[in-house]
Amino acid sequence: MALRPTDKPDIEAALAAVLDRTASRDCPQKLARALHHAVFPGGARIRPKLCLAIALANECDSVELALRAACAIELLHCASLVHDDLPCFDDAPMRRGKPSVHRAFGEPIAVLAGDALIVAALETVATGELSGAAALRMPGVFAVLARGVGAPHGICAGQAWESEPTVDLARYHRAKTGALFIAATHAGAASAGVDGAPWETLGTSIGEAYQVADDIQDAIATPEALGKPCHQDEHLERPNAVAQLGVQGAARRLRELIEAGIDSIPDCPGRDLLVDLVRAQSQGFIPKGLSRAA
Amino acid sequence: MALRPTDKPDIEAALAAVLDRTASRDCPQKLARALHHAVFPGGARIRPKLCLAIALANECDSVELALRAACAIELLHCASLVHDDLPCFDDAPMRRGKPSVHRAFGEPIAVLAGDALIVAALETVATGELSGAAALRMPGVFAVLARGVGAPHGICAGQAWESEPTVDLARYHRAKTGALFIAATHAGAASAGVDGAPWETLGTSIGEAYQVADDIQDAIATPEALGKPCHQDEHLERPNAVAQLGVQGAARRLRELIEAGIDSIPDCPGRDLLVDLVRAQSQGFIPKGLSRAA
Repeated sequence: MALRPTDKPDIEAALAAVLDRTASRDCPQKLARALHHAVFPGGARIRPKLCLAIALANECDSVELALRAACAIELLHCASLVHDDLPCFDDAPMRRGKPSVHRAFGEPIAVLAGDALIVAALETVATGELSGAAALRMPGVFAVLARGVGAPHGICAGQAWESEPTVDLARYHRAKTGALFIAATHAGAASAGVDGAPWETLGTSIGEAYQVADDIQDAIATPEALGKPCHQDEHLERPNAVAQLGVQGAARRLRELIEAGIDSIPDCPGRDLLVDLVRAQSQGFIPKGLSRAA
Repeated sequence: MALRPTDKPDIEAALAAVLDRTASRDCPQKLARALHHAVFPGGARIRPKLCLAIALANECDSVELALRAACAIELLHCASLVHDDLPCFDDAPMRRGKPSVHRAFGEPIAVLAGDALIVAALETVATGELSGAAALRMPGVFAVLARGVGAPHGICAGQAWESEPTVDLARYHRAKTGALFIAATHAGAASAGVDGAPWETLGTSIGEAYQVADDIQDAIATPEALGKPCHQDEHLERPNAVAQLGVQGAARRLRELIEAGIDSIPDCPGRDLLVDLVRAQSQGFIPKGLSRAA
């Protein structure tokens, strides 16, 4: 089945199907509830949307594989939030406007929920029937996702740079936030059977833009508006764009990154539609109240 | 390449190759050292040996796929040990005769090392070139491994039963310890292209035997001999075979389970060799000093 601009692959329904399988009646019910808590209701689902949009722009002929990849990316992102919120990392009491998983269900269940989400994510990509071309492309899609989450290049490694005495900042940010965005672009391209390399700059730019937007929101928002604690970068003395550039400078950098990402989009059948989509989605990154002229 | 009784697929070398890729020079070095610490030197490597032995007994024609599965099972086991030792679970100071990962490298790195090992394990199965039949069998092998580690049936779920107010003991043990042994039998069979179902009783029996042996050792060994804390079942009030049957009763049960496992081995080209191997390996389960006549 081809994925066309008129199709709307339903990420929420696909995630719900994974959770139906993983957090089923056979699952210990506290863990099952924690898995649902970690995945629903979601945030902006920006990574899976990016993955699907790239598959679509390249006239992907396997909606199933692209949707599996998109789902996996979101589940890996949710897993990383559950583990990053743990007491030994950020000790965050809130996430997406409700208690973090370890606050709601205890630390053991939070560790296990993150583990089970990593497994469910990769299982979603690799198991179940796929048609000819999709079956051949699946290992390549799997490889870019695994690279985006594990060591040495993925988000696990990104978080681990915080435990090193000296850190290459670019490498730290690229691994901690960029890796899943880069994986989203590669997986979208690989699902459609096209080379992911020309798409990587889009992932890098949007990932960096998202990180800058997060830094700005951490500095200027309230916990109520954000649904999670703010001023965490300052509190935890984490390197961040606002400390480096100020709020207005960071906002300027954010817009430059979005434009650089859009400019990098390779020629493909659905380029115009994709440009509109990335621009519309990334407008949501710019915190309200920051002047367009800044 | 066929896997024959004369071949000796090298599990240690295969694990080292995965670690070379995962804990490479690009990896944050504390995480890289923690990954090595978690995997080497290993324990008995009983799960991967069981997986390979079953592939071999069925004249597996893809040593590569069977070895990938064996590696993955051991890495998933190592990941589970790292996370189970965390302060929020057993808070174990020692493992395999040296400090546990969180004692040696801190809690954040222990969480990340477990995560990265899960990813590396599943990545080992799903990525890289495979020949015709092996490529077709890979998703089936992947599925049984993912089932053995995730929710609702795998070791994550098994650990999560400890957070439930009431627990079905059989289901708890089956998921906590049995799941990876069952996965080992299924993955060995699936690598060789044969149905895993007739092999499951072997996995269940050996898994349960291993759990009983662990309960006995926990009750009678010293921390020095065991390389990890003992009397933990009593201390943490975990249900266990010694509390239920006494030491001698548990030893009798252990031997019955090994025999039941051996009796269940289906007819296959290498059955005799496999029987000898399982018997020899499982002799190591019986703690020294327990009379054969007991």
